[in-house]
Amino acid sequence: MSNIKIKTEINFQHLLSIEGMSKELITKIFDIAETFLKIGKHDVKKVPLLRGKTVCNLFFENSTRTRTTFEIAAKRLSADVLNLDISSSSQSKGESIIDTVNNLIAMSGNIFVIRHPESGMPKFIASNINKDVHIINAGDGNHSHPTQGLLDAFTIRKYKKSFNGLKIAIVGDIKHSRVARSEMHALSILGASEIRLVGPKIFMPDDVDPTKFQEFNEMKAGISDVDVIMMLRIQKERMQQEIIPSEKKYFESFGLTTELMKYAKKDAIVMHPGPINRGVEIQSQVADSSQSVILAQVTFGIAIRMAVMTMLIDKNI
Amino acid sequence: MSNIKIKTEINFQHLLSIEGMSKELITKIFDIAETFLKIGKHDVKKVPLLRGKTVCNLFFENSTRTRTTFEIAAKRLSADVLNLDISSSSQSKGESIIDTVNNLIAMSGNIFVIRHPESGMPKFIASNINKDVHIINAGDGNHSHPTQGLLDAFTIRKYKKSFNGLKIAIVGDIKHSRVARSEMHALSILGASEIRLVGPKIFMPDDVDPTKFQEFNEMKAGISDVDVIMMLRIQKERMQQEIIPSEKKYFESFGLTTELMKYAKKDAIVMHPGPINRGVEIQSQVADSSQSVILAQVTFGIAIRMAVMTMLIDKNI
Amino acid sequence: MSNIKIKTEINFQHLLSIEGMSKELITKIFDIAETFLKIGKHDVKKVPLLRGKTVCNLFFENSTRTRTTFEIAAKRLSADVLNLDISSSSQSKGESIIDTVNNLIAMSGNIFVIRHPESGMPKFIASNINKDVHIINAGDGNHSHPTQGLLDAFTIRKYKKSFNGLKIAIVGDIKHSRVARSEMHALSILGASEIRLVGPKIFMPDDVDPTKFQEFNEMKAGISDVDVIMMLRIQKERMQQEIIPSEKKYFESFGLTTELMKYAKKDAIVMHPGPINRGVEIQSQVADSSQSVILAQVTFGIAIRMAVMTMLIDKNI
Repeated sequence: MSNIKIKTEINFQHLLSIEGMSKELITKIFDIAETFLKIGKHDVKKVPLLRGKTVCNLFFENSTRTRTTFEIAAKRLSADVLNLDISSSSQSKGESIIDTVNNLIAMSGNIFVIRHPESGMPKFIASNINKDVHIINAGDGNHSHPTQGLLDAFTIRKYKKSFNGLKIAIVGDIKHSRVARSEMHALSILGASEIRLVGPKIFMPDDVDPTKFQEFNEMKAGISDVDVIMMLRIQKERMQQEIIPSEKKYFESFGLTTELMKYAKKDAIVMHPGPINRGVEIQSQVADSSQSVILAQVTFGIAIRMAVMTMLIDKNI
Repeated sequence: MSNIKIKTEINFQHLLSIEGMSKELITKIFDIAETFLKIGKHDVKKVPLLRGKTVCNLFFENSTRTRTTFEIAAKRLSADVLNLDISSSSQSKGESIIDTVNNLIAMSGNIFVIRHPESGMPKFIASNINKDVHIINAGDGNHSHPTQGLLDAFTIRKYKKSFNGLKIAIVGDIKHSRVARSEMHALSILGASEIRLVGPKIFMPDDVDPTKFQEFNEMKAGISDVDVIMMLRIQKERMQQEIIPSEKKYFESFGLTTELMKYAKKDAIVMHPGPINRGVEIQSQVADSSQSVILAQVTFGIAIRMAVMTMLIDKNI
Repeated sequence: MSNIKIKTEINFQHLLSIEGMSKELITKIFDIAETFLKIGKHDVKKVPLLRGKTVCNLFFENSTRTRTTFEIAAKRLSADVLNLDISSSSQSKGESIIDTVNNLIAMSGNIFVIRHPESGMPKFIASNINKDVHIINAGDGNHSHPTQGLLDAFTIRKYKKSFNGLKIAIVGDIKHSRVARSEMHALSILGASEIRLVGPKIFMPDDVDPTKFQEFNEMKAGISDVDVIMMLRIQKERMQQEIIPSEKKYFESFGLTTELMKYAKKDAIVMHPGPINRGVEIQSQVADSSQSVILAQVTFGIAIRMAVMTMLIDKNI
């Protein structure tokens, strides 16, 4: 890593949200992630950058998929990894979350990857603990999921080189999606030319700045001539609550099909944070097409998480 | 490992079943396992053969014991290990099993150790994914459990040197046992002289080739003059379904006792894939006797799994 | 570690209880723990003392906190760690606990960290297995929790230098506490001048030697002029059983408050094995005060567990 010597002037102590990050910091994360992607193609993928450090995955909400990406990233940096299933642990004994984290700090945890159903909990923890550890928000309520937002923007940079002139559509339940919120912040900061929010009215957020984002309640217009289509997962819980009528009805109006793909640019890429619901928000043929970069996102996600962890620990990288 | 230079002409991409493996390939696995057994006696048991590789244990059926043997084998080869409890993970979100595996490949999993209640699932996965990863079947339905079959045959080779002239009895619920099926294939391929299937009629498989296997429905005749007795675990579920009358009744007819051992050869060995049911299929005195090699099987199982993983990854070993 | 060359004449094969340990052995554990504490301040905390060894955490009682401390200690010594959740494993298949442990020994486990709801189970296991592995009792019923007792005594040595002349109060439900029992043994062996047991009569053990321990059923007298206050966790289960009237009532009589702290020595330290119940046995202000060494105990606990594991494996250290 010694060839990368851009000093970060920003105090990068925690990664809580993309809101407020500078374009320079995000660009630096991407540049470092690129170097890890190269390592990913080598035979031996481990680097000793976090040797002797302990990464604690504190998941108050079950997510094997997301937890696994952080676990792989940490192990590839040679860190020790602790997976803590909090629901079955101290919380049931009534210990406060701050006491739990302070205990793990005393056991010398260095990085805490936290997922929590309550918006703002990672920030609350970061404000109530010792300064020399690092919090990464791995998803808090409807609020934020910054590493997903970063890896999505990174994927666009990989395929489209620049954000300048790009038209991007985010499609689905934007209102309840922490992923969408993080994507919107990242794309704004990086200077995408046009960011569209596409979905039924009931899924549009209330507080959108119309000078930054354009709303579409219909797919053909929404994805017309775009370079990038970022699909969101439709949460089945919402259908059970009858917020939307049925999977079939939703697919008919907002499912991404090969038919609809003709309206986007010919070289448009299709993204999805996973896990995908085939036949609900996306047709199988589209998910498996050559325009789909869904699995590439997963690979890039490991590199982004390695970059974030490395930069949190080593200010001089 | 540089002293072992027998080229494998067979394409050893996955280990799905013992059926169809050549005697040469099995023998090579055994020879490499021998070298790991020697390592097992050293003070520091780790070797760096799989450093930088990731082994994913995907268990759709709970089995701490089997999962642990693969975990130990992988760690001793210096691989990173991911244990994924699938029932509590993405499957509950409705993701297809192929999407789950493709995601883990994108995170750069190299070897997938899969246990699944459905026969044929590991093969189905192997046929639907990218070519440069490796599937090891760790037990699928009633079908196959190839590493157990291999370690059992390896145990016989360790104690009896050759399969030539050997009389071997497999005792218990053969019909429903993937272990028995794998043992039968392994022993046939390796050329055991006489393979007997011993148990109540209701536990005999329907489709046995009588030119290869002899059926016995009585213990004395079944184990008479044999060199090896391979006991199977009786699954208590079957007794609850009243397929067999009771544990006590079963033990009276087919439990291996010190009395019965007199009918076998004096130097006969007793095997069991574990966990054993003392007083159901085997008497405690027999399980703990000097003729029992049950714990040796466990030790050899680690070496066999190390050999299989190494050969899957390194074609030139 | 080469500078520490005090030969242990005691056969330190297992750590089952503090009862019967010599002052010399405990002192040696503390001296070695000191060297690991220094390592803990370095950037890279790993040492290769247990490389190639396997530590199995066998927890028959759920305790993420305690299990995590052993996991961190083992990983920092470069051991491979297996976490086995036994309730969901072989035990449900009816396998005996000795068979389970013998299997793990055959897979080449070297150190077994065992927590079990039954008093005496770690000793029972140690007496029924092969000699060349090591059992660490991580808490058995109401009986013993030796590493907690050791780390508590070590904490006192760190802050008070010597046990000579020290007055120490253990406060709370001593009768049902394996932690209290281990602390009492450790402090007696190390020669603390005065050991007081403080709590309601119903929480006092029946079999206390009055020449070694003084009983107090009232807080002011109990902690008057002491150097060290060791609080115990009040188990809420006991309140549900109406052994004690309510959390509020208990706090009024035996909760440690800033008011009560005035009766102890000015430089008295406050300890607690965690997790703490704020407002039940201890006031938040006291738990977070400069006299509280509760989080230091956690840090020291890692060093103590590293020292114990190292000394079990390496007789010549």
